[in-house]
Amino acid sequence: MAAGGAEATGEPLAIICGGGSLPLVVADRAAASGRRVLLFPLRGFGDPENFAGRDCTWVHLGQLAVFLRATRAAGCRDVVWIGSLVRPSLWQIRPDVRMLLKLPRLTAALRGGDDHLLSSMARLFEQQGFRVLGAHEVAPEILVPEGPFGGRRPSDKDDADIAMGLAYLRATSAFDAGQAVVVAGKHILAVEAAEGTDHMLGRVGEMRANGRLRAPAGTGVLVKAPKQGQDRRFDLPSIGPQTVEGAVRAGLAGIAVVAGGSVIAEPERLVAAADRAGIFVTGVTAEP
Amino acid sequence: MAAGGAEATGEPLAIICGGGSLPLVVADRAAASGRRVLLFPLRGFGDPENFAGRDCTWVHLGQLAVFLRATRAAGCRDVVWIGSLVRPSLWQIRPDVRMLLKLPRLTAALRGGDDHLLSSMARLFEQQGFRVLGAHEVAPEILVPEGPFGGRRPSDKDDADIAMGLAYLRATSAFDAGQAVVVAGKHILAVEAAEGTDHMLGRVGEMRANGRLRAPAGTGVLVKAPKQGQDRRFDLPSIGPQTVEGAVRAGLAGIAVVAGGSVIAEPERLVAAADRAGIFVTGVTAEP
Repeated sequence: MAAGGAEATGEPLAIICGGGSLPLVVADRAAASGRRVLLFPLRGFGDPENFAGRDCTWVHLGQLAVFLRATRAAGCRDVVWIGSLVRPSLWQIRPDVRMLLKLPRLTAALRGGDDHLLSSMARLFEQQGFRVLGAHEVAPEILVPEGPFGGRRPSDKDDADIAMGLAYLRATSAFDAGQAVVVAGKHILAVEAAEGTDHMLGRVGEMRANGRLRAPAGTGVLVKAPKQGQDRRFDLPSIGPQTVEGAVRAGLAGIAVVAGGSVIAEPERLVAAADRAGIFVTGVTAEP
Repeated sequence: MAAGGAEATGEPLAIICGGGSLPLVVADRAAASGRRVLLFPLRGFGDPENFAGRDCTWVHLGQLAVFLRATRAAGCRDVVWIGSLVRPSLWQIRPDVRMLLKLPRLTAALRGGDDHLLSSMARLFEQQGFRVLGAHEVAPEILVPEGPFGGRRPSDKDDADIAMGLAYLRATSAFDAGQAVVVAGKHILAVEAAEGTDHMLGRVGEMRANGRLRAPAGTGVLVKAPKQGQDRRFDLPSIGPQTVEGAVRAGLAGIAVVAGGSVIAEPERLVAAADRAGIFVTGVTAEP
């Protein structure tokens, strides 16, 4: 059955789904608000198990013709891109002829950072008559609120690490690179770039295990922030239960993400995992 | 036989040796200039094979008393710290009582970044009557010269990646974190922090192997630069043959390091390895 069901009445919404559970969370929220939802999981990113039993159209990144046919048949003009996709996917686009015709500057777009590519893609969709929305516009509940989520709060030392992490991400924002950093004792332990947050956390865990870092377990913070001037329709930093698991394996004290500028998948599971592990997860304000 | 030999006439020089071949290269250059050299390889960093057959005193990082006894007996007042040591070692100092008495603020020093710790250590040595020198002051030949080393030169695209890498390192310099970054197609692929350059290069190779990066092999540049305002007596970025091997495994086009602000161990072996692999290694000017 299609998400949204037969009784959906609002204007249909197309969701292009990357990895993780966030696309389905948003799909279900949109459906609950009465919209018919068309799911387009991306091959290589969407997890087939997540889409079992759902009406959906699997597409390769770049298969514009398939997408246009399905959405036009449904009278759908709104489209959302959601899910972990961006950083690894830059080099994985397999443009069809239609897309190449529409986006002759694709190669140039690919040469820049993530935002550059996504802006080009958004323009392409807009030229086709679509309205490109942010996931948080469709499902505002997914935006991270201010303050701690679970039972733990950051200590003063954690606050100092958070401030340093936010400052670092602000300083590198213009480079359109990573959106996450691990800081412990005001020492920058790891910086995310193309590898993504989960791999970066894995590296911190390894450095702890092999003695390269001697900072005691239970110290350090994962800090995530959106890029400044980022088009917030795309790729807002997101956290979910697996981020908590990664932070725990990395021996961190907690996670800080920018409130109103980050999204959270499955907040209940995330809070349960954080409380069980005794780490904090908190929404913070990034200074301008 | 001690490096420097019996005929050494200049003032003796103590070298505290981290990993890699650079400490021995500097020791041999200093000895060739007529100085007696006292080697203090650090346990856990110095490679025992490198020191086989050399007169040296193995010490733990923090064993100040042993060092003071040996240098005073030799009438030695000049000391140099050399070799890969800094980033992993921050948490590995085992201070003896003497050091704790001399450096009551050790814990505070450990809490900051690398420069902070090294400045504290230098102050400590200076309080004990030592002159703390940079490796390049003792052996100026190790400083990276301007321009390409081997047969290859960076292309215009490589130059654009180098410029971006230098700009990134400049923007993050104040954070006292890493000194290296990998850039390909103006996209920042990896940023070094506590893991060190070799591990960062390994990560780029893994991302290429597992398809996370689709940039063609033979693209991308490793860019290394000293921190701005860095005390150049310590931890200048260094490259050696193993850096070339890492860059080759990472599928890069080449390596760019700041001329006059980086040091090179075994230039002949490095050039041979780079030419064999067909990658460039070049000394560049960092804009102010």
